[in-house]
Amino acid sequence: MSERGNLLVVGLGPGHRSAMTAQALEALQHAEVIVGYHGYLALIEELVEGKECVALPLTEEVQRARIAVERLRQGRRVCVISSGDPGVYGMASLVLETLGEDAPDNVAIIPGVSAVSAAAALLGAPLGHDFAVISLSDLLTPWEVIERRLGAAAQADFVLAILNPKSQRRDWQLGRAQEILTVHRPPDTAVGIVRNAYRPGQAVEVTTLGRLADAVVDMFTTVIVGNSQTRRLGPKLVTPRGYDVH
Amino acid sequence: MSERGNLLVVGLGPGHRSAMTAQALEALQHAEVIVGYHGYLALIEELVEGKECVALPLTEEVQRARIAVERLRQGRRVCVISSGDPGVYGMASLVLETLGEDAPDNVAIIPGVSAVSAAAALLGAPLGHDFAVISLSDLLTPWEVIERRLGAAAQADFVLAILNPKSQRRDWQLGRAQEILTVHRPPDTAVGIVRNAYRPGQAVEVTTLGRLADAVVDMFTTVIVGNSQTRRLGPKLVTPRGYDVH
Repeated sequence: MSERGNLLVVGLGPGHRSAMTAQALEALQHAEVIVGYHGYLALIEELVEGKECVALPLTEEVQRARIAVERLRQGRRVCVISSGDPGVYGMASLVLETLGEDAPDNVAIIPGVSAVSAAAALLGAPLGHDFAVISLSDLLTPWEVIERRLGAAAQADFVLAILNPKSQRRDWQLGRAQEILTVHRPPDTAVGIVRNAYRPGQAVEVTTLGRLADAVVDMFTTVIVGNSQTRRLGPKLVTPRGYDVH
Repeated sequence: MSERGNLLVVGLGPGHRSAMTAQALEALQHAEVIVGYHGYLALIEELVEGKECVALPLTEEVQRARIAVERLRQGRRVCVISSGDPGVYGMASLVLETLGEDAPDNVAIIPGVSAVSAAAALLGAPLGHDFAVISLSDLLTPWEVIERRLGAAAQADFVLAILNPKSQRRDWQLGRAQEILTVHRPPDTAVGIVRNAYRPGQAVEVTTLGRLADAVVDMFTTVIVGNSQTRRLGPKLVTPRGYDVH
């Protein structure tokens, strides 16, 4: 089996080594080739010393998957890295699509702590009930689809975790999302904002839907919009499951 | 700080030690008291030797949170364990609710690999786009709320991750969910079913929405219903992000 190599898509978790799983660490240690965005390779620099590292910028996802599959077919042991969980807007689907119908049994996905779980843990417990995860990036998804999902999730009282809320080129989507959510939720709905979870520059803020537009948000930010039950408890944001606590 | 103890709500991940984070492991090692469902304590038996272990059955969540807070107030170092991520239908919200307004800064949530991420990794990459997570347990949530969420998520073409699909006492909810989803999605919609992810007895099955009722499902099962783009690629289930792969 090792002679024909393998290909593992590895979730690094939110960023800090301590939030990585033993399985992910082991996968990196056994790999010969590591393929990833250079920002994520920098997070694990000393783990990948002496290995072939293929670092490509953020927009080169398709190329990263192709190189990984090519190296697999050369019989190498390859890891493709994703921050958070590779199944959630990460490299897992793209790598499997690139492999096509004949995904061999030496290909596997190593799950990680997702950006959503990491942000929620730092805020308290905002995901304590049913939730929806939506990316505001309309680079690959028509904006009408995103709008429809925002409206449906808000109307059905899901907690909402919003990823990719803003980037340098995408600056209006979060404001528009706020408008859509405000149709279904009062402006005092609790909102949590986490930047750089478990990384240098970590910032955690609790605000409201009405003030969302004032928050400092970038592409390394996760925004969590509470449901009708979510509330502040001291510094924490909590969505009750429904237990009778008292 | 250590004199006044601490309280950590720790995510164990799906079950196998290799999917636990270093941070979770360290928290367990430093704890004096471990509070949890005995089934989960059994998963980490040799890590908790010599510690005070408070094992309570599945229905005693409120009591577990109370005992943990009581031990914290006695100045002990306490871990409350949850499988998966403690923020997703786990103990995080209940512990914070029990603490109330004055959640002290020696209380923290340690995130884990969620049951949803684990199931998705074993299936391939079904969560490759926006998704909603819904529990079918109506013990604490009115069934009408659950129905509304199922309908809204299906209509807006979210991938759906369904937790707690069935138990010995709750045997009709999954069939009803199937009916609701079938209003909005064709019966050949791809569905993945994972039992006992990363645990003994692990079983992974790919089926369709139309055949969901025939699947073997219990309370340790996660069901993932694809969106309109989800498809089988060989043995894997993949939801494309939208990249042009070819």
